[in-house]
Amino acid sequence: MKGLLTRCRALPALATCSHQLSQYAPQRFHHCAPGRGKRLMLSRMFQPQKLREDQVLSLEGRSGDLTCKSQRLMLQMGLIHPASPGCYHLLPYTVRAMEKLVRVIDQEMQTIGGQKVNMPSLSPAELWRATKRWDSMGRELLRLRDRHGKEYCLGPTHEEAITALVASQKTLSYKQLPFLLYQVTRKFRDEPRPRFGLLRGREFYMKDMYTFDSSPEAAQLTYSLVCDAYSSLFNRLGLRCIKVQADVGSIGGMVSHEFQLPVDVGEDRLVVCPSCHFSANMETLDSSRTNCPACQGPLTKTKGIEVGHTFYLGTKYSSIFNAQFINVHGKPSLAEMGCYGLGVTRILAAAIEVLSTEDCVRWPGLLAPYQVCLIPPKKGSKEEAAAELAGHLYNHITEAVPQLQGEVLLDDRTHLTIGNRLKDANKLGYPFVIIAAKRALDDPAHFEVWCQNTGEVVFLTREGVLELLSQVQVV
Amino acid sequence: MKGLLTRCRALPALATCSHQLSQYAPQRFHHCAPGRGKRLMLSRMFQPQKLREDQVLSLEGRSGDLTCKSQRLMLQMGLIHPASPGCYHLLPYTVRAMEKLVRVIDQEMQTIGGQKVNMPSLSPAELWRATKRWDSMGRELLRLRDRHGKEYCLGPTHEEAITALVASQKTLSYKQLPFLLYQVTRKFRDEPRPRFGLLRGREFYMKDMYTFDSSPEAAQLTYSLVCDAYSSLFNRLGLRCIKVQADVGSIGGMVSHEFQLPVDVGEDRLVVCPSCHFSANMETLDSSRTNCPACQGPLTKTKGIEVGHTFYLGTKYSSIFNAQFINVHGKPSLAEMGCYGLGVTRILAAAIEVLSTEDCVRWPGLLAPYQVCLIPPKKGSKEEAAAELAGHLYNHITEAVPQLQGEVLLDDRTHLTIGNRLKDANKLGYPFVIIAAKRALDDPAHFEVWCQNTGEVVFLTREGVLELLSQVQVV
Repeated sequence: MKGLLTRCRALPALATCSHQLSQYAPQRFHHCAPGRGKRLMLSRMFQPQKLREDQVLSLEGRSGDLTCKSQRLMLQMGLIHPASPGCYHLLPYTVRAMEKLVRVIDQEMQTIGGQKVNMPSLSPAELWRATKRWDSMGRELLRLRDRHGKEYCLGPTHEEAITALVASQKTLSYKQLPFLLYQVTRKFRDEPRPRFGLLRGREFYMKDMYTFDSSPEAAQLTYSLVCDAYSSLFNRLGLRCIKVQADVGSIGGMVSHEFQLPVDVGEDRLVVCPSCHFSANMETLDSSRTNCPACQGPLTKTKGIEVGHTFYLGTKYSSIFNAQFINVHGKPSLAEMGCYGLGVTRILAAAIEVLSTEDCVRWPGLLAPYQVCLIPPKKGSKEEAAAELAGHLYNHITEAVPQLQGEVLLDDRTHLTIGNRLKDANKLGYPFVIIAAKRALDDPAHFEVWCQNTGEVVFLTREGVLELLSQVQVV
Repeated sequence: MKGLLTRCRALPALATCSHQLSQYAPQRFHHCAPGRGKRLMLSRMFQPQKLREDQVLSLEGRSGDLTCKSQRLMLQMGLIHPASPGCYHLLPYTVRAMEKLVRVIDQEMQTIGGQKVNMPSLSPAELWRATKRWDSMGRELLRLRDRHGKEYCLGPTHEEAITALVASQKTLSYKQLPFLLYQVTRKFRDEPRPRFGLLRGREFYMKDMYTFDSSPEAAQLTYSLVCDAYSSLFNRLGLRCIKVQADVGSIGGMVSHEFQLPVDVGEDRLVVCPSCHFSANMETLDSSRTNCPACQGPLTKTKGIEVGHTFYLGTKYSSIFNAQFINVHGKPSLAEMGCYGLGVTRILAAAIEVLSTEDCVRWPGLLAPYQVCLIPPKKGSKEEAAAELAGHLYNHITEAVPQLQGEVLLDDRTHLTIGNRLKDANKLGYPFVIIAAKRALDDPAHFEVWCQNTGEVVFLTREGVLELLSQVQVV
């Protein structure tokens, strides 16, 4: 340790520690983005697994709170770990899935002209007092004071902040509009009763977009555009989503829609008209209503998880902060605003809730943390000779299918039987599980491929495996 | 608007709004990740520019606080905007640069086996009481209570949280170690006097890694490995960085080093020995010392910005939270820990501080928000015919050099002269500025290419431009 303390090197002197590095080499590449010889080894993952239900319950500390399938599965499979009520550590598999989801969201938002910003969590009280939400948001706001006594809340949403920011730009022209500004950041809400794991937490990731237009008509077009981008997102994830009319709540504005994933554990009660496609959150309708307001036909009831929410705000916020632009006549004019939220961590949990079985996690293909799990034979078994073939196959996949670099995991726990490891792989929901067993010793070698999202099992040669995997979409 | 309110569609019914979309098409692709016909237009960027110094001062509210070049330039160029003392909105260019920096950090951390996690900002007081840091961190901790009166701080660092998380895994084996767990998240520190813009803020992004090893020897190797990854990172960014011995401060532990960028505005005072490569933060030495503790030679003084900090912690935290593993003898044993921070937003600002001139931002090539700015001729000028060639060149670049998709900006403000737009481009520091002017009308067309990071200006044919740009590294 003394060497570390006293020997310091200028940057180019990296060579001085090369002998240390080479000693360390066998351990160096546990979780690298792999190329040849750098394989992702399952045994080295920080990913506590196979907790029994009672162990999971004791994690949460309160036995009544394990209230839905996605929460139980995510705890059992080591995808999340409780930190405090409504706050979770996201473990490595979940971080990978979330980063993929954020990339899909970025693509969709940037396709419609979205520009990404990043606003602080510490939000000064004076902004919230200006809109009267410092009082009206009540105990949902987490509040604090800094060392000088200045008051802040932790932003649950950022209408105030973004409008003040845009208002500070004094020379905006109608020619520059619309602006579609968004961020993907942590949000905070002091839920009275956090529950359902990531579905209703106190600290969570949200994508929030705010749009600024030069007229109500232009703002309506932007509103449609963002809604269509949301639909496109859920389509790409393979999640059936219903867009329903919704209450504007504390955000305000004139028009609002929610994007809902229909599922029984959902906390929102929805009505859908099978005849005319009317659909609404029941809180927007008279509770005695049983027929469709549009076509008078009977309404079908369902429950949903709100994964997105859109608002046409008009000038509610721009008038308070004086967010103006110079219009076509050279006069200052208030911006017409919209705001649009996607629950990022909530979408992850909701997708797991919708797609999984009681015991096995399933992911939207695009979001699976790893696309492929490769299982070599058990050490000491009759098929042990196939282990080398599994290693070769790993290299072939990552070389022949570049988008799968970093996506293939080798289940090197070869003290376990293939069956036990297949069971784990089934629980974790890798889209493709490839087993090198007895038939890998045939000529040509055949690998057993479990396509977990379709339920198919096929035996394929190396070329067959590569052809199949070259079709996989990775974001 | 009524249509939006009452017409809701199931997902496949996207066709219903296609006429709206086609009306909107001319505006649809302002900032898209471009392909053919989808160009990034500079005029549509949310990026307030060309503020005068007095306007920038009034942004910060307190005239004495514009204390360094990077802060002034980032405010003037619309890279950041103040939200509250020590808290900044990151505007689109900065978000792009930061996301690139995070990708480089991810690559370096994952190459040495790092696994990415994500821990909440809300950190329960009981964790901090266990290590006595609830008191010892004093007023630097931002503290709050939830609606039930439970106390939290906003995490400035996460030794407590990660150690408690690892301690909760009861079945760790020495075979699984080392674990290198890291996150890139916002951190909070209630600085008595936030200043220097992103260099010393109250809310900032940090990469923090925590390592768990089975022996002091293994922990030392891990320590070297992470330090080498840091050196590799700064090398790739083209930033000269000095590793100096450092004080362990409130983190604690036995060994600590800082990674410092030498620059006059830096708040750390360093000594370096030109003869034997000893270097240290002066706070680790007796203040009267003028000669090198290692070789007794004279010491050179310099100032630096701390961009990274590493600590070998031993069992300081693992003993408190009982973070154990099963050792080779089947007995429980405390994990040997290290922790390692990189100031993400600080590295961005420090790089700008070091690389920029008084008036012009310069970025590490790898982190430049956009690699290329293309300037077509002024509308109504003699060279106006070259505008079409500039458009074609845009398409050729993004088709022939796939890594530059999303990296080329067209300065479509053709009411301005080429000279004025070149001046702006110079200020914003795009690595490559390409001008289509008079010589673009030659046969073959020649484009004027300003390589802003090397200071070269060359005239190149289309093929020459593509060859030059195909060398550009993009992360």
